[in-house]
Amino acid sequence: MIFIDACFRKKTPYTPVWMMRQAGRYLPEYMEVRNRAGDFLTLCKNPKMACEVTLQPVDILNVDAAILFSDILVVPLEMGMDLRFEKGEGPIFDHPLKNREDLKALKVEEAALRLDYVYEAIKLIREKLDRDKALIGFCGAPWTLATYMVEGRGTKTYSLVKKLLYTDPDFMHTLLRKVTEVLKLYLQKQIASGVNAVMIFDSWASALEESAYFEFSWKYMKEISSFLKKRNPEIPIILFPKGISGYLDKIDGDFDVFGVDWSTPIKLAKDKLFDKYVLQGNMEPMRLYNKDAIKEGVERIVEVMGKKEGHIFNLGHGILPDVPVENAKYFIDLVHEMTKR
Amino acid sequence: MIFIDACFRKKTPYTPVWMMRQAGRYLPEYMEVRNRAGDFLTLCKNPKMACEVTLQPVDILNVDAAILFSDILVVPLEMGMDLRFEKGEGPIFDHPLKNREDLKALKVEEAALRLDYVYEAIKLIREKLDRDKALIGFCGAPWTLATYMVEGRGTKTYSLVKKLLYTDPDFMHTLLRKVTEVLKLYLQKQIASGVNAVMIFDSWASALEESAYFEFSWKYMKEISSFLKKRNPEIPIILFPKGISGYLDKIDGDFDVFGVDWSTPIKLAKDKLFDKYVLQGNMEPMRLYNKDAIKEGVERIVEVMGKKEGHIFNLGHGILPDVPVENAKYFIDLVHEMTKR
Repeated sequence: MIFIDACFRKKTPYTPVWMMRQAGRYLPEYMEVRNRAGDFLTLCKNPKMACEVTLQPVDILNVDAAILFSDILVVPLEMGMDLRFEKGEGPIFDHPLKNREDLKALKVEEAALRLDYVYEAIKLIREKLDRDKALIGFCGAPWTLATYMVEGRGTKTYSLVKKLLYTDPDFMHTLLRKVTEVLKLYLQKQIASGVNAVMIFDSWASALEESAYFEFSWKYMKEISSFLKKRNPEIPIILFPKGISGYLDKIDGDFDVFGVDWSTPIKLAKDKLFDKYVLQGNMEPMRLYNKDAIKEGVERIVEVMGKKEGHIFNLGHGILPDVPVENAKYFIDLVHEMTKR
Repeated sequence: MIFIDACFRKKTPYTPVWMMRQAGRYLPEYMEVRNRAGDFLTLCKNPKMACEVTLQPVDILNVDAAILFSDILVVPLEMGMDLRFEKGEGPIFDHPLKNREDLKALKVEEAALRLDYVYEAIKLIREKLDRDKALIGFCGAPWTLATYMVEGRGTKTYSLVKKLLYTDPDFMHTLLRKVTEVLKLYLQKQIASGVNAVMIFDSWASALEESAYFEFSWKYMKEISSFLKKRNPEIPIILFPKGISGYLDKIDGDFDVFGVDWSTPIKLAKDKLFDKYVLQGNMEPMRLYNKDAIKEGVERIVEVMGKKEGHIFNLGHGILPDVPVENAKYFIDLVHEMTKR
């Protein structure tokens, strides 16, 4: 698989490319399934439908990897928290974590078992997906999940969870430890079910100052990565801490690919990390609104990363719902064309 | 004034300190005036009340500078846009900018005149403020203001304004040009009214990738700064682009102090910028929730910046409404004590 070869810096005929949120609302085919499902969580929990939407961007756009369709918040859901998705508001936990009793009630082994609909979906997808295309499994980073579990919903200030972090660090570490244990089991089961690579999304990495980031987030991501690497050296691991361009000097650990978000200059990531890790990224997703902007964006990244091994093309964050499908196609084709060896 | 001396890297008896949003909701004395005013905009537009709340943190906390109480959005308001503040939602423009007609309708010279309540407040404050304490005037950066003017309210994705930026850059430049012209006049009038320093807040700097940041934001901030520096070399200028730690290598321009936000490691800012600029910042505001966290935060910054010239202590973003006043006092006192020469 070209994508897997690229993760290990092996020779490939071109730079592989996929897009975060490629199975998403900008595709009419996705919307059709989404409407059929009724609501978002039902779609996540239905292996057949999850399989269907996972495969769509591979067929429609010719991306080099499929990423499992799911949501990072199914993990806290199956740990015992009641999750709902409200239109225009995003995810809501009606009973966010408040005290140590709440922490104690969180399930670990049971959660990993209850996520069987994800493993089912993976088996179905891997059966139907072209053998040359990789299937990427994923989860949210412990810090990012803990943020939602404490705040109860999206937040601009992260003030509840950060207040907790600075006033009761022990509470946070207990929570992060539990989430980390679930994620180890969860990703190991994803691998056992057939994914060819895994990615850990730390979407809220940028909410933490440097010292707090390494103590409350990176440490746990590295731990999950080491755990998996020891058991599955053949499965590439991609870590994606979003928006930490000031901390790249201190990035280390046993993983394969560093996901570069759009706010981190790719040249900076190359200077700091390319010796140790393959880089994935990082075109500004908003460039997809305009073909000239796409061309300029791709050219700039190719200029830095070259047509050589060590790079996987991607957006620096998820594709937006109102991007024309035609533009997404143009992006994928252009990367393939411009990076041909 | 110790604060002004520090801006010019002159010797001071200790490192001066103030806090962004120091005249704010965490102070019961502020809430009293705020309730008397009825709503937030009335408070901004009333020079006597604005004066009163500006002086409060100087009296209560012994900070080394007062910052004018106002809001960055009074500028678009007086350019002709209808602004309201909705509880729990923040600022809302009911008619955000949509087309070139909307752009044409924006006032420039008239806007700078209509902001006379700000100049009135400055005169009052400067009369009443201790002569040893500096008064800082301010405005929002053109990019940050333009973001609100296009989006109509706070946003997580900035998708409207960034879509515009990549599909119709000319529209954005026309808008940014107009805002820049107002801000030059506005800050010049603030200086004429008595402020001792000015600060430009680019709160949404981090919404832009590197190339877009320099083209659509930094360029205009530098232009305002040069304009003011030529006319008022004795007035220090502080630029605060929030969250651009990946772009520090390219920061240049004619200004005095670079404001370091909490997400930019102070050591990184020192390595990249200290030769050229005095640094202001950057304690994580969430540390104010806990005294041990305050102590650790102050110690870490003093360790990097020393007790030497070239540093102004501050938070790396605004103080939060539910911080105990006692903790804010502890922070200010600790900085004074720990940096005594």
